[in-house]
Amino acid sequence: MQSGNTIYIAIVGVGGVGRHVIAQLHLISKEYPNLRLCHISRSKKSLYAQDFEQPLPFDSWEHDLAQTGQDPLSLDGLLKYLASAPGKSVVVDNTSSSDVAAAYPMFLKQGISVVTPNKKAFSGSLELWKDIFNSVRSPSNPTGGYVYHESSVGAGLPIISTLKDLVDTGDEVARIEGVFSGTMSFLFNTFAPVQGNGGVWSDEVRRAKAAGFTEPDPREDLNGLDVARKLVILARISGLDIQNTSSFPVQSLIPKELESVKSADEFMEGLPRFDGTMASMRDDANAQGKVVRFVGSIDVKKAVLNVGIQTFDKSHPIAALKGSDNIISFYTKRYGSNPLIVQGGGAGGEVTAMGVTADLIKVIQRLS
Amino acid sequence: MQSGNTIYIAIVGVGGVGRHVIAQLHLISKEYPNLRLCHISRSKKSLYAQDFEQPLPFDSWEHDLAQTGQDPLSLDGLLKYLASAPGKSVVVDNTSSSDVAAAYPMFLKQGISVVTPNKKAFSGSLELWKDIFNSVRSPSNPTGGYVYHESSVGAGLPIISTLKDLVDTGDEVARIEGVFSGTMSFLFNTFAPVQGNGGVWSDEVRRAKAAGFTEPDPREDLNGLDVARKLVILARISGLDIQNTSSFPVQSLIPKELESVKSADEFMEGLPRFDGTMASMRDDANAQGKVVRFVGSIDVKKAVLNVGIQTFDKSHPIAALKGSDNIISFYTKRYGSNPLIVQGGGAGGEVTAMGVTADLIKVIQRLS
Repeated sequence: MQSGNTIYIAIVGVGGVGRHVIAQLHLISKEYPNLRLCHISRSKKSLYAQDFEQPLPFDSWEHDLAQTGQDPLSLDGLLKYLASAPGKSVVVDNTSSSDVAAAYPMFLKQGISVVTPNKKAFSGSLELWKDIFNSVRSPSNPTGGYVYHESSVGAGLPIISTLKDLVDTGDEVARIEGVFSGTMSFLFNTFAPVQGNGGVWSDEVRRAKAAGFTEPDPREDLNGLDVARKLVILARISGLDIQNTSSFPVQSLIPKELESVKSADEFMEGLPRFDGTMASMRDDANAQGKVVRFVGSIDVKKAVLNVGIQTFDKSHPIAALKGSDNIISFYTKRYGSNPLIVQGGGAGGEVTAMGVTADLIKVIQRLS
Repeated sequence: MQSGNTIYIAIVGVGGVGRHVIAQLHLISKEYPNLRLCHISRSKKSLYAQDFEQPLPFDSWEHDLAQTGQDPLSLDGLLKYLASAPGKSVVVDNTSSSDVAAAYPMFLKQGISVVTPNKKAFSGSLELWKDIFNSVRSPSNPTGGYVYHESSVGAGLPIISTLKDLVDTGDEVARIEGVFSGTMSFLFNTFAPVQGNGGVWSDEVRRAKAAGFTEPDPREDLNGLDVARKLVILARISGLDIQNTSSFPVQSLIPKELESVKSADEFMEGLPRFDGTMASMRDDANAQGKVVRFVGSIDVKKAVLNVGIQTFDKSHPIAALKGSDNIISFYTKRYGSNPLIVQGGGAGGEVTAMGVTADLIKVIQRLS
């Protein structure tokens, strides 16, 4: 009974995260022999087991998808397919698609669980958030599925699980503060280091872009929205009814004059004109023994969220961050004046996949 | 079905941790109405529901235990009692008793789950460790109970769950390092601060004792064994077969001459004679721009564990620790040169209870 239930896994999205999720699933399938991989899709192609008794292999999917992949199922089609499985099923959404996110309530209501690093569902409209969590299995809704989304904030770092444990056991979270973007972390750690002079802003952006630390269009990182989305998620878990990312101030590092230029290249060409502004902001902070960092903060008691540049003493843990690391501090009643801090790499396919797989293990354990 | 199972909770130990666990349980019982408190015991007295349909109240137990408490059940008696419950049950062991710890396999084999902050079972003999984890529910042992022990390292900080997620998803943990004792943290942060001169060693120990930051006999903190026990737990989760705390070097801060003095008072009287040794060690480090800290480390690849004083650059996160905080760094293949770090208060009744209650929620979710 408890350990024998077969569980069917449907993977949506096999990019930088999804392929690592499948590799990690392969590994855990030795520990959980009741796992079956039944569906893999990317934007244009999909593979699925016509016969649930003959699941997909964990190792040769890439070749099979290229050779024998069919047109992907619609989300409705995927729902019907999984509903016909002879056991419980889980959708692993590795995309950043709003369409897939909008379908979570539909899956959950059907008893199909969802595991995902996709921020869209949890940082989109408050209505979708409520629809998702009203559809989750609970004493009053015993037929719903489970939803886990650790990697939607800080990738594999234990951020969401920690906040939930604090809230669920009755601690009072007063404030959450930190560096939530690996890209912003990298840019500011090199542009305004604790020791030394730092570089030229547009050069740092160019270097980060070349190293793959930014989106192909760096404006998607510099507009602050990625950080804002993560704050919305943590604020809602803390109990605040935040409507969306437009409900609070988000500082964009895209100069007004470059907001509407058409291409990323054009943006990069124009950026050096604003190096002086960035440099003087950094130098002003430096004159006071401080550094500038791009942070997000939630004052839970006052229900105030904020995303933007702030200055920190050089001895502050946020100032001392390295590389593209994230750091998130939880100030709570129980932990008093010294916060509970989680720090480390908060981006990248492998560590994001780790958060997804660890969540999946928790779902498998609850369904087994 | 899934959400309807009634779950019976037996509390063993209602000291500084146990009373907070019951208060937190009271809170979560609103979310999990299928919870029933059926047994509470301390060393000399116990209360239990004769009729499982009439559970104990979450609020008036202290008065009831004092007024109507009976002789406690033996561990065998508790097993028989819980085995007769009309549903699944969980023992919450808030003691630091080796006897209770030795009984875990017996409970687990009977399908009774165990949640505990008690280090003894997990840092004792390797045989007991194996007996416990062979008795846990798994595909090959579908009738076993679950065991969760987050608070056995770092109290409510997410240390064990994080390490398990890393290991279970296939990351390679190379090294674990940190400050694992709140008492040692407090002593060294004040004795050898990053800025300023710091105090006299025996004065700091006296102050910490007076403030309740040490055990009544400070030798129980200064012998390094508390840190050694935590290392054994993390090393075993990392896959190392460590026999016990005698399997690796543990530096004791109890001077040889004071090891055999009879009372804590006599110890405190003798301690100032060793202030010079401690001060010169600190001053030597200071001359190199470093500070001394009492740390534990595990080199997982080489299977080398170590507990004792080490020196750290003043810019190192371990040097910058405040108050009685713990800090634990996980160096892994996926996280590369920058470790995953968890930091915060790692001792105290309320945060330890939080780890216990959060574990209990996970067990309830798996049993529901």
